[in-house]
Amino acid sequence: MEYPLFENNVQVEQIGTKCNDRPLEYEDRRVHVYLNGMQSNTYNTIPYYTMMRVRFPLLLLLGIVFLASVSASFVKQQDEPEQPRPYPYPRPHQPHQKEHGSEESESQRSNNPFYFSSNKFHTIYENKYGHIRLLQRFEKRSTQLENLRDYRVAEFKSKPNTLLLPHHADADFMLVVLSGRAILTLVNTDNVDSYNLESAYAQRIPAGTTFYLVNPDDNDNLRVICLAMPVNKPGRYEDFFLSNTEEQQSYLQGFSKNFLEASYDTNFEEINRVLFGEKQNKQEGVIVQLSKEQIRELSRHAKPISRKTISPENEPINVRSGHPIYSNKLGQFYEITPENNPQLRNLDISLSSVDINEGALLLPHYNSKSIVILVVNEGKANIELVGLREQQEDEETKEVQRYRAELSEDDVFVIPADYPVAIEANSNMNLLGFGINAENNQRNFLAGKKDNVVRQVSDIAFPGSAQDVEKLLNYQKESYFADAQPSKKEKEGKGPLPSILGALY
Amino acid sequence: MEYPLFENNVQVEQIGTKCNDRPLEYEDRRVHVYLNGMQSNTYNTIPYYTMMRVRFPLLLLLGIVFLASVSASFVKQQDEPEQPRPYPYPRPHQPHQKEHGSEESESQRSNNPFYFSSNKFHTIYENKYGHIRLLQRFEKRSTQLENLRDYRVAEFKSKPNTLLLPHHADADFMLVVLSGRAILTLVNTDNVDSYNLESAYAQRIPAGTTFYLVNPDDNDNLRVICLAMPVNKPGRYEDFFLSNTEEQQSYLQGFSKNFLEASYDTNFEEINRVLFGEKQNKQEGVIVQLSKEQIRELSRHAKPISRKTISPENEPINVRSGHPIYSNKLGQFYEITPENNPQLRNLDISLSSVDINEGALLLPHYNSKSIVILVVNEGKANIELVGLREQQEDEETKEVQRYRAELSEDDVFVIPADYPVAIEANSNMNLLGFGINAENNQRNFLAGKKDNVVRQVSDIAFPGSAQDVEKLLNYQKESYFADAQPSKKEKEGKGPLPSILGALY
Amino acid sequence: MEYPLFENNVQVEQIGTKCNDRPLEYEDRRVHVYLNGMQSNTYNTIPYYTMMRVRFPLLLLLGIVFLASVSASFVKQQDEPEQPRPYPYPRPHQPHQKEHGSEESESQRSNNPFYFSSNKFHTIYENKYGHIRLLQRFEKRSTQLENLRDYRVAEFKSKPNTLLLPHHADADFMLVVLSGRAILTLVNTDNVDSYNLESAYAQRIPAGTTFYLVNPDDNDNLRVICLAMPVNKPGRYEDFFLSNTEEQQSYLQGFSKNFLEASYDTNFEEINRVLFGEKQNKQEGVIVQLSKEQIRELSRHAKPISRKTISPENEPINVRSGHPIYSNKLGQFYEITPENNPQLRNLDISLSSVDINEGALLLPHYNSKSIVILVVNEGKANIELVGLREQQEDEETKEVQRYRAELSEDDVFVIPADYPVAIEANSNMNLLGFGINAENNQRNFLAGKKDNVVRQVSDIAFPGSAQDVEKLLNYQKESYFADAQPSKKEKEGKGPLPSILGALY
Repeated sequence: MEYPLFENNVQVEQIGTKCNDRPLEYEDRRVHVYLNGMQSNTYNTIPYYTMMRVRFPLLLLLGIVFLASVSASFVKQQDEPEQPRPYPYPRPHQPHQKEHGSEESESQRSNNPFYFSSNKFHTIYENKYGHIRLLQRFEKRSTQLENLRDYRVAEFKSKPNTLLLPHHADADFMLVVLSGRAILTLVNTDNVDSYNLESAYAQRIPAGTTFYLVNPDDNDNLRVICLAMPVNKPGRYEDFFLSNTEEQQSYLQGFSKNFLEASYDTNFEEINRVLFGEKQNKQEGVIVQLSKEQIRELSRHAKPISRKTISPENEPINVRSGHPIYSNKLGQFYEITPENNPQLRNLDISLSSVDINEGALLLPHYNSKSIVILVVNEGKANIELVGLREQQEDEETKEVQRYRAELSEDDVFVIPADYPVAIEANSNMNLLGFGINAENNQRNFLAGKKDNVVRQVSDIAFPGSAQDVEKLLNYQKESYFADAQPSKKEKEGKGPLPSILGALY
Repeated sequence: MEYPLFENNVQVEQIGTKCNDRPLEYEDRRVHVYLNGMQSNTYNTIPYYTMMRVRFPLLLLLGIVFLASVSASFVKQQDEPEQPRPYPYPRPHQPHQKEHGSEESESQRSNNPFYFSSNKFHTIYENKYGHIRLLQRFEKRSTQLENLRDYRVAEFKSKPNTLLLPHHADADFMLVVLSGRAILTLVNTDNVDSYNLESAYAQRIPAGTTFYLVNPDDNDNLRVICLAMPVNKPGRYEDFFLSNTEEQQSYLQGFSKNFLEASYDTNFEEINRVLFGEKQNKQEGVIVQLSKEQIRELSRHAKPISRKTISPENEPINVRSGHPIYSNKLGQFYEITPENNPQLRNLDISLSSVDINEGALLLPHYNSKSIVILVVNEGKANIELVGLREQQEDEETKEVQRYRAELSEDDVFVIPADYPVAIEANSNMNLLGFGINAENNQRNFLAGKKDNVVRQVSDIAFPGSAQDVEKLLNYQKESYFADAQPSKKEKEGKGPLPSILGALY
Repeated sequence: MEYPLFENNVQVEQIGTKCNDRPLEYEDRRVHVYLNGMQSNTYNTIPYYTMMRVRFPLLLLLGIVFLASVSASFVKQQDEPEQPRPYPYPRPHQPHQKEHGSEESESQRSNNPFYFSSNKFHTIYENKYGHIRLLQRFEKRSTQLENLRDYRVAEFKSKPNTLLLPHHADADFMLVVLSGRAILTLVNTDNVDSYNLESAYAQRIPAGTTFYLVNPDDNDNLRVICLAMPVNKPGRYEDFFLSNTEEQQSYLQGFSKNFLEASYDTNFEEINRVLFGEKQNKQEGVIVQLSKEQIRELSRHAKPISRKTISPENEPINVRSGHPIYSNKLGQFYEITPENNPQLRNLDISLSSVDINEGALLLPHYNSKSIVILVVNEGKANIELVGLREQQEDEETKEVQRYRAELSEDDVFVIPADYPVAIEANSNMNLLGFGINAENNQRNFLAGKKDNVVRQVSDIAFPGSAQDVEKLLNYQKESYFADAQPSKKEKEGKGPLPSILGALY
């Protein structure tokens, strides 16, 4: 039996991983998404026999359990048949589900316009010492992300004792160290500044600033994430390297022999020898190894890591400085906003670093103004984002739509402003967030003791009485972070059902 | 005899009224427009026999009257043949024309990219207590309106003693009460503010602010207009309701059962009962009826209407506070600019409220910087807007183009910056204007005593001598508002001609 | 033998010169560009026999000379066969090349998205007294220039003793006098300001300001360049003239007879006579001749030219006031930035005026943030701009790309931010630059004594030792401007080769 639909889908996925995204005009094909309600949001591409397969088990289940509303998801990977999933009850609980069913998350990934799995990064430079990778353009993924067209996300990794060669780009960068140590050197015509950076330190690199980046550590890799804001054209920028390597010509080689000879007032052979080198002594790539001696020399002028809470203008920002804005035994939420840092004010972005302990839930909330680009630094999590479904003509009730993803290291997830979101950590995890349009952003929680906006409308929004709503809201004793499996043991009694479901197919 | 051209046009009109305008990419087809000069601006779609029909009566008329320049308009509705109209003389005067000729205005409406008749609003929510309607996207109507792609106009109406349920949107709103009374409640995590509003009061609702709106009046409907500035994507935004109704799911239902149980630390049945309710006790829609008791309760905390001229930050703005900027016995023009209100400064918009008495003319003028979105609150009017015609290759003289429309209640008209405009009230009328890019806008009048820019170039711009021009400009004793029919009686002597024209077809 | 490829290319060029660029959506077809390396950047349109012709002479030359890297350019005009050009050695030196080879520059022009030859200006108005011309839209030329979509460049020329009639536009203007003298009059409802301007004086004309421009000189033409920033729609604006001429209707004529009669409270015949005139007394066009008497009258109120270094707000800016920021015996570079002028701050643009003496080279440099729109006022020059080549899939080394053009009077060249550029003057020349996004822009030089960013990374970026690099950089004794042919005599010994090359084809 063949499933041309899903074969097709897999192909789309592969195309999506190509990076040279200008000619491609990659259009997200939403084939299957999580839905509430009995309708399948298939956008007229699901063949008839698929529909039949889905309905049959639903009828079966209707005889067993009460279904307030039903969400059907079509899952397919390789040769396995698709599998229906009733919602919200009796949905197999998460841990069990993941043991035997990562098929589901795969299919979600390809259809969730807000989720960029780590394979959506395209390699720009790569050699044995490290790589630079660039995330797919946001607005090419979905028109939902059109307002992010002036933003790109890049990732840099390098081995111990290496150097990313001097270059500049036609983009403003906000660079954040995810792990390891770095010496970042910013070069201007009149001065050179070197900074020691470590995990959760950020530094703005203004467009056109020549810079280089050393991993001075003897053991640990350096991992850096970069928000790039191109200045010449929307969503595209170039790296201009001074050095001539096997991976990248020196930009000085772009000038004609005549221009070079006049510029340096000497003959071309001399210029060629000193600046560009022979084939045999060219560097292998834009990331090169350094000797201990060289590292020592480069470290000498670097400013020590600042432990100040408020970083002076133009100096590195410690995202985790001061007190977390939200914190309990289950997690910590650090944030630096445009209001308290001039580098960020200028770009109107915020930076956040969030720890969620294994088994904890970052409670449902939304940002009033910011679009948040979330980068997974460490750990695994489930994220649920709630949007509104595009209305079909014949529908009576406007429905909400859940965008769900299983996040792991290096994945990126975009949280639009005002869309409610919650995150459950499956292992200890750390997230880095870039908030776009961050000035005056407010975070409104929808559960928990504090900052809970639902509490303010308890008397007017719900069928339950104000007393009932208050009582309900007071069950949760925590704020911001809560236990994600408060009644795990009880529910495990309902465990057999998933196995039954599994047995049916 | 068939007129496929116009049938086609009618169809376009119908398509245009559909709201889900993303897939449609509605392109305004300008088929016939008002023109000065003998050429018909038909953009190569008018069939040959139409041209013939037009030219014949023109030749006839050329023998009777002097034609300084001629404007031909092709009118067609249902089965009636089209009808030429010579310009500027002997054009039938307006009142007569409207008695027997609303065909004309219909055809103009469909071809004037700046005019949005009230049927260009699409219903988003509607039940027996009221509705929310959203105007067609500006930039989908015409590339001329591309700079308005980040703006939408929404209208809300509700019956006495009703409530629009709590919700938030991913857009900044500038809400203005057109008629009736309202209690607007803005909910944040740490405070709740309620304001009493009445006609011509405006309030900014920042993106993400949960709010609800009560019509506390026992008799009068509430009518509200809203300028929406989406934050996530250009020209589109969503309303997120907390309440679960037959029209709209609660956004909390978008989270999975697991996430909800963990968030509220209780079982799903309890959450479902208290927050979402059973089918039988669901509200019919997002606008619900309130008892007198509930109205009293909700009114109790609302701040009284502020009569201050300068409204404090974050408090409602009285658009008609203080003195009108232009005023005489024929009309009044109130305006609040970014310069005198911080809520408006932040959005760079202005608000204006204009009364024009029946039979008065708001004199020709243009805005130097602002694009004005005009909403007709009350009354009927003729508006004339002057642009420049896109040049044809074989033309010698670049021509101006008149965009004319008959405005009535709930119509919207966009006045681009620097395009001259004048409005004649056919009944007492009130207009509300949102000025986009309002900072430092200057209004230049082209007739009347004051603020008349023509007077400043009387010696250099015209064939008449400076004295002649001055004399001409001094006939008009009024400023800003003037009598629209100063010589009505004289002209009525020329009345027969329209009847003759009418008889010819 | 036929070359359909190039025929096609010529056709594109012609289409590109049409001005009504909205319907056209002109897409730059880069068919042949200057390249470093053996690959021909032909974007799969060069037929096979062309490739063969190119490779054959390359093989021949490889036997004669050492080729560090090779740049092949395909040149074709009319019936001449294409001609390969090895790079960088032994490239025929510039003067020789230009004597027999202006074909090359022609082909470059059509493929260089940053170069707009003066024929890319389209005439908007023209009569015997002068003309107004508008440059092709930037973003229609290339997606590389998409961020310039809100900018247009217009040119105005008029004969001695003439007047450009009063009008306003829906665009902000930054007007700069390139040569001649002008009296610019800005008209508002409450005041009229006249300014004397001469070469290198600039004045902002806010959108909607009615203005007129006199050439009061008895002998010299007036030449003005204008950066226009439209307010209603991206990249398009209109001129609204008050006067009724053979070239352009008065915008007042756009109003109906009824509206005009009511506005001026008189009959239409009187309005027509005084404001619009009869056919026989209409002006020929929007530029008219003035008598000496009229000139005297108009000069009377004009403010004298300000020689102040810092111009007061709203007064003309002398771009060449104060000291040049870079200067030596070979050239001078004047610049006014947003930081030192409020008119420019508001628009975030800078103005520069650069003199380069014949035979001098403006040394390689890049702007960190600004995109510069360069207008050639006087003289001839070669410009070289270095970008990065779009990567082909099978390439190993990312290559740089040289965009080269021969500039002459009235040409426009766009220099993107961060792209290195250098200019060699072939005659004494003067350039005017509009810098877009100018705030905090930094200019980094890549050669010369001062402001040389390469010097700062001499120890880390190059195969040569730090000492070698320093030594190399110290050969050049000048800063900013240098001799473009320092070793001209030596190289002339290598002269025969170009002749040999020429003989081969």
